[in-house]
Amino acid sequence: MIKVSGKLRERIEAEELVNCMGKTITITGTIYKIRNMSGFAFVILRTKRALVQSIYSKEYTDYEITELKENSCVKLTGVVVEDSRSKKGYEVRIKNITVLSKPEEDPPVVINNKEIAASLETILDYRPITLRNDKERAIFKIQEGICIAARKFLQEQLFTEIHSPKIVYTGAEGGANIFKLDYFGKEAYLAQSPQFYKQMMVGVYDRVYEIGAVYRAEKHDTSRHLNEYISLDFEMGFIDDFTEIMEMETCMLQAVMKLLEENYAQEIALLKVNIPIIREIPAIRFSEAKDLVSKTYHREIKDMGDFEPEEERLLCEIIKKTTGSDFIFVTHYPTVKRPFYAMEDLENNEYTLSFDLLFRGVEVTTGGQRIHDYKEQVDKMLFRNMNPKLFESYLMIHKYGIPPHGGLGMGLERFTMRLLNKTNVREASLFPRDQNRIVP
Amino acid sequence: MIKVSGKLRERIEAEELVNCMGKTITITGTIYKIRNMSGFAFVILRTKRALVQSIYSKEYTDYEITELKENSCVKLTGVVVEDSRSKKGYEVRIKNITVLSKPEEDPPVVINNKEIAASLETILDYRPITLRNDKERAIFKIQEGICIAARKFLQEQLFTEIHSPKIVYTGAEGGANIFKLDYFGKEAYLAQSPQFYKQMMVGVYDRVYEIGAVYRAEKHDTSRHLNEYISLDFEMGFIDDFTEIMEMETCMLQAVMKLLEENYAQEIALLKVNIPIIREIPAIRFSEAKDLVSKTYHREIKDMGDFEPEEERLLCEIIKKTTGSDFIFVTHYPTVKRPFYAMEDLENNEYTLSFDLLFRGVEVTTGGQRIHDYKEQVDKMLFRNMNPKLFESYLMIHKYGIPPHGGLGMGLERFTMRLLNKTNVREASLFPRDQNRIVP
Repeated sequence: MIKVSGKLRERIEAEELVNCMGKTITITGTIYKIRNMSGFAFVILRTKRALVQSIYSKEYTDYEITELKENSCVKLTGVVVEDSRSKKGYEVRIKNITVLSKPEEDPPVVINNKEIAASLETILDYRPITLRNDKERAIFKIQEGICIAARKFLQEQLFTEIHSPKIVYTGAEGGANIFKLDYFGKEAYLAQSPQFYKQMMVGVYDRVYEIGAVYRAEKHDTSRHLNEYISLDFEMGFIDDFTEIMEMETCMLQAVMKLLEENYAQEIALLKVNIPIIREIPAIRFSEAKDLVSKTYHREIKDMGDFEPEEERLLCEIIKKTTGSDFIFVTHYPTVKRPFYAMEDLENNEYTLSFDLLFRGVEVTTGGQRIHDYKEQVDKMLFRNMNPKLFESYLMIHKYGIPPHGGLGMGLERFTMRLLNKTNVREASLFPRDQNRIVP
Repeated sequence: MIKVSGKLRERIEAEELVNCMGKTITITGTIYKIRNMSGFAFVILRTKRALVQSIYSKEYTDYEITELKENSCVKLTGVVVEDSRSKKGYEVRIKNITVLSKPEEDPPVVINNKEIAASLETILDYRPITLRNDKERAIFKIQEGICIAARKFLQEQLFTEIHSPKIVYTGAEGGANIFKLDYFGKEAYLAQSPQFYKQMMVGVYDRVYEIGAVYRAEKHDTSRHLNEYISLDFEMGFIDDFTEIMEMETCMLQAVMKLLEENYAQEIALLKVNIPIIREIPAIRFSEAKDLVSKTYHREIKDMGDFEPEEERLLCEIIKKTTGSDFIFVTHYPTVKRPFYAMEDLENNEYTLSFDLLFRGVEVTTGGQRIHDYKEQVDKMLFRNMNPKLFESYLMIHKYGIPPHGGLGMGLERFTMRLLNKTNVREASLFPRDQNRIVP
């Protein structure tokens, strides 16, 4: 029989120490750093989330510190003593240490300084250990917080969580940027987005969301592209117009910032994160945005159909200056640049009822209203020389009824990158995948 | 619920109607069913989660019901009137209906009866619309509840959520059951499990979890195998022994059942789910379990190294009869049948410190303690004729220090299937993937 309840909480967590003044406690963790001083040593323990500073002195223990190695995993027994010199208001005086596992070698990269003094390439090559750096791991606690907050918000707004398949029979986004797979002798693909599936699920639950991997076989080698990334997607039915989706995202982002400030204060402080204040997010039409950037910076517009990355950066600069907002919705993207399921603007069908969200210079979200009428969708496919027969199961939703709907996809790593003012999206991916990297 | 500026909450949700007696409300949804009676009609609206019964009568409205079609998406205005004959204690008298979108055709499968009268094959072929059946969609609300509860529990136990890559350079589980991918001219694979990555992340956060897709290129065509499925994985450091993992799972399952009972009562009632009572989960050694089944049912043991599905079923039958438990942990699986990272039992290295969890006749979880010592791991790889050079980045964790640790993976669809007493795992997958099916 398995005993339930006993062991799970027999050890103390770092966060509880502050309530243990004067007590002898046992805590587990990894020796992050040993700083030898004259006559004593600071032994810093890396625990689940916090670093715990303990004091080694022969006054308090018979344990021989020469036996202790950095990166050993230990069970440490000590007394929690009030100490005003310590940031946390206490110190842990080591009484005993039991080594539970020892490293074979010292790490080839120094991981226990404030910053890792190595190139991003090296940091990624040694990812399993460089992630142990206190700042590195804080990045992904923040990323966790974003997901927790988004899920909580979306659940409150009555979105249902779905799991859509990533092995698919056709791409949702078109184009050649799709990974091919040998699926028992048939050709299959890796999903570029959960687009078709979340639309199908709007017919079931009205509002759905998914946080999951998507795949783009893009040959871009830039600081903002990954070939596998985590997309936060939601899709909602019964919208009056596409601005409702933008409103939902605005509220979601507000909820994200609020939860981060409440529950991730230590990581925010450690990484000096500048949490954006979100009241309203301004919106500007795509064509006006192009003009604005062109006029403000005397730049020639090279491509009226899309943004260059530099234009996105400059637009955000203008918006920040004029409104104070770190975010800007760009709406009404040209029809030719949007997928076949994008709903066109009735007033001018050269533009779609769609938007991107830019955050501190980088596009982090693409969204919009989708076509819900069967004939309209089939006609648009034919106009684009697509064969509706190949999309029969997708078109079931239009044929058998679907409410007016729309949604968005947000790139989790890009969003994390800009929130933390990082410049390379790989810094915000645990194990990034690009053209040259699938290890580790 | 977060009150969003304006539009998002201007309409009422089905769950709020009970607080709207005597009021005129507007609600959106899809016409699920129209039941014409003499002189009036029941109009059943499918909303996000609930079905809402409304009453159409010429007494209350000028709207012509002949204009209304099943599967139309509508905005319905009506008065909520107390009515003791109705299950919910009220009825909604229709004042007006605005049709927001119309289907092109009637569905080829009748979806608005209690059960869909069609084969599983047909149900899956028409998945985008058959999921709209009230019972079908309830299955995946329960599945959502499992995920929500597991995340909540694991967060409380200080597990950090991770996202590991699914495009990988090597398989974690070995064997030929792995999908190959052309990754920019190099060979890559789809992850069979997040095993290596969650172990790496134990070195970072101690406790981690992930709910994500995994891929098995198995040619099994059975009622319990999917080629893409959702795995709930957790991995925890600083364990004294592998029974701590079983204890953690037991507590997680208790938390799951509790949250389902609290928040998914309507789906539990609709699907007549028999929620198992979990006090303690009995455990039995693999070899003893084989003997027990053999003796009880006078069966010959064909394979001492593994269970046949029928043996798992029979074992669960015995355990249910003798202990009342719907779950049974089977421990100490043979070393030859477990992966190279499984820790062997010091007392007898023919067996591993591992376990499976069986639930109502089917294996739903595999877990165990992992090797943390570098030399021990390298030696075991060499003994198995594996080349440690190919696993260099994985072995970093052993080389540079990792605590004693272990974890498990639980198949979400299998678990859902057995919880709901379904017999085919495809019934518990939104869009199942098997050898013959990648559409829709």
